[in-house]
Amino acid sequence: MIRLGGGLAFPGELPNIVEEAAAAAAMRSEGLQYGPLYGLDDLRDAVVDYLAHDGVTAGRDNILIVNGAKHGLDLACRVFIEPGDAIIVSGPTYMTALAIMKTHEVEFIVVAQDAQGMKVDELESMLDARRRRGAAPPKLLFDVPDFHNPTGITLSEARRRRIVELAVEYGFRILEDDPYRRVRFEGTPVAPIKTFDTGDYVIGLGTVSKILAPGLRIGWVNASPEIVGRMAAQKCDHGTNPFVQRIVAQLFMNGKVDEHIDRVKQTLRVHRDTMVAAVREHLPGSMVEVPQGGYFLWVRLPDDVDADALVRRAGELNVEVNPGGLSFAGPTPGQFIRLAYSFCNPEEIRTGIARLGEAYRSMRAAQHAA
Amino acid sequence: MIRLGGGLAFPGELPNIVEEAAAAAAMRSEGLQYGPLYGLDDLRDAVVDYLAHDGVTAGRDNILIVNGAKHGLDLACRVFIEPGDAIIVSGPTYMTALAIMKTHEVEFIVVAQDAQGMKVDELESMLDARRRRGAAPPKLLFDVPDFHNPTGITLSEARRRRIVELAVEYGFRILEDDPYRRVRFEGTPVAPIKTFDTGDYVIGLGTVSKILAPGLRIGWVNASPEIVGRMAAQKCDHGTNPFVQRIVAQLFMNGKVDEHIDRVKQTLRVHRDTMVAAVREHLPGSMVEVPQGGYFLWVRLPDDVDADALVRRAGELNVEVNPGGLSFAGPTPGQFIRLAYSFCNPEEIRTGIARLGEAYRSMRAAQHAA
Repeated sequence: MIRLGGGLAFPGELPNIVEEAAAAAAMRSEGLQYGPLYGLDDLRDAVVDYLAHDGVTAGRDNILIVNGAKHGLDLACRVFIEPGDAIIVSGPTYMTALAIMKTHEVEFIVVAQDAQGMKVDELESMLDARRRRGAAPPKLLFDVPDFHNPTGITLSEARRRRIVELAVEYGFRILEDDPYRRVRFEGTPVAPIKTFDTGDYVIGLGTVSKILAPGLRIGWVNASPEIVGRMAAQKCDHGTNPFVQRIVAQLFMNGKVDEHIDRVKQTLRVHRDTMVAAVREHLPGSMVEVPQGGYFLWVRLPDDVDADALVRRAGELNVEVNPGGLSFAGPTPGQFIRLAYSFCNPEEIRTGIARLGEAYRSMRAAQHAA
Repeated sequence: MIRLGGGLAFPGELPNIVEEAAAAAAMRSEGLQYGPLYGLDDLRDAVVDYLAHDGVTAGRDNILIVNGAKHGLDLACRVFIEPGDAIIVSGPTYMTALAIMKTHEVEFIVVAQDAQGMKVDELESMLDARRRRGAAPPKLLFDVPDFHNPTGITLSEARRRRIVELAVEYGFRILEDDPYRRVRFEGTPVAPIKTFDTGDYVIGLGTVSKILAPGLRIGWVNASPEIVGRMAAQKCDHGTNPFVQRIVAQLFMNGKVDEHIDRVKQTLRVHRDTMVAAVREHLPGSMVEVPQGGYFLWVRLPDDVDADALVRRAGELNVEVNPGGLSFAGPTPGQFIRLAYSFCNPEEIRTGIARLGEAYRSMRAAQHAA
């Protein structure tokens, strides 16, 4: 099976953490005992430094260590959402985030994207219309502003500023989920939404899943101490694993995270280029924007190719890809698939896309013959 | 500070996991990649074997690996509880469980305990009264049947059987939270409630926190595949940390868990005996039942000693103990404190209880003088 579905790490670049793991295991009274509810101070401080690199000013009290960014999203929903409350998401958006939000029985306000990211004018119209008809304002806006999942789009600076203005005006919080930010192959980074926060409106969610290893299940929340406290009170895990926190803190402090990011960027840039070329060769008539970073290609198929059928056919050829429908909170406005170039090596990517192309061609041929 | 408050592990007995940690870290494609949602097969199988030792028949499909037993409790609430639903608990019960259940906005049905555990006759009357007045039946019953937290009481076999009968009759599920079962110093174990299950009524919650190390944050759920599936769908962590799961699986398989349990039992038996003797010497007029295992002494104070005031006074003398009120879902029916003998060594226990005795004597003297 050639896995172009999930956003897994590239197996050839998983970090060597044997030394740090053995050292953390030797610190028995820290790692094997219950840990502090907010996380190890050393790790919270390392996250503060990591965020400062992006221009985000935070202190230790702003940081809550969680079991991956998804856990942070769930805690935010526990704090801010009652069943029936509304959350703004882009259409499409991160499919697992949708699944988590659905467990909180939310109403989705779906805003379309263009090449600049979420269409804020459309969002403003929708908020205004809701207000005029007396509907409650949304509680949260969720977005992946850098190398969006699944589209790879980066939200423009102007729109980041405008989204914060709308949050202030309508009183919702922004969940800035930013796992891919450092996986940038080219181009200039846009400042995080958090840097435009004028009050207490932006809650940053981060993770080591894409900059180190997903299996470590370490993420963080960056918010005001008041919000961090409310989210910590909803944590039912008696503190995130302190043993693994020590390993991750050490990898931040000894520079291995930065080294790993450099390697991942070099590797995934080649993966992306390989996949873009293969898609152009084997899926003629489909459309793809080339992302400047991240893990995914978002492919718009011609209207005569049913995405779900293509995914099934590809599976029969031992190629796993994700149907676009999983990424939409509502109906799917067209035929899309998401392709991850993170896990497979270039040869597997070429083989996988060639097989996908076989399925694609045979489906189109059958269509036209019918 | 002498810590007789939280149920921490004894620092002198934390296991040496350096070798297993280094080996798990070397298995990069397993431990550092996203893990399976239900947990590693090897760990699920190890849990099956662990449960079999207690007469509990389970298969791999019955086991969901979670981030500590608390996480299992939270998932059960997510599946079975809507705000306002009722949960049966003993009075007193595990304080952190109360905190988790409160985040789900439950109504508590509090049933008193005696030396045999939860008073099932009282429970039956309460259930019958609720039915007669048309109130909805409770959704869950939560109990710690072996070496109950905080009282140390073990639920009798007859009551275990009767609780299952009541669950069948009234249609609720039983959460059997059993972290202390193997920490038995003497006496004969009573079969787990799960062994009396006649259908799909008992959900077992387990953890390595008391048999290995709390910092590992590895627990499990034992339930029908249908319930396990519904709980897994509420997991927002993309699978519990596979790297730590491998370490724990290895420790189960190489016999170190059993060795560790033997050492912990020997050590904590001495701790318990030391604490019981010290309490009898330094807190005359208070009452304590000697538990046959577990981590805690539950001390009933004379009515003229205010528990909260005693806890504050002890804190001023650098002794941390827990006020009994934290363990009650409703009003506290008397003056209680919970003393953990798990964390401190015998000398610290003697010193701590002697200081607690100072506070106790001076408070009683002031009372009688007033």
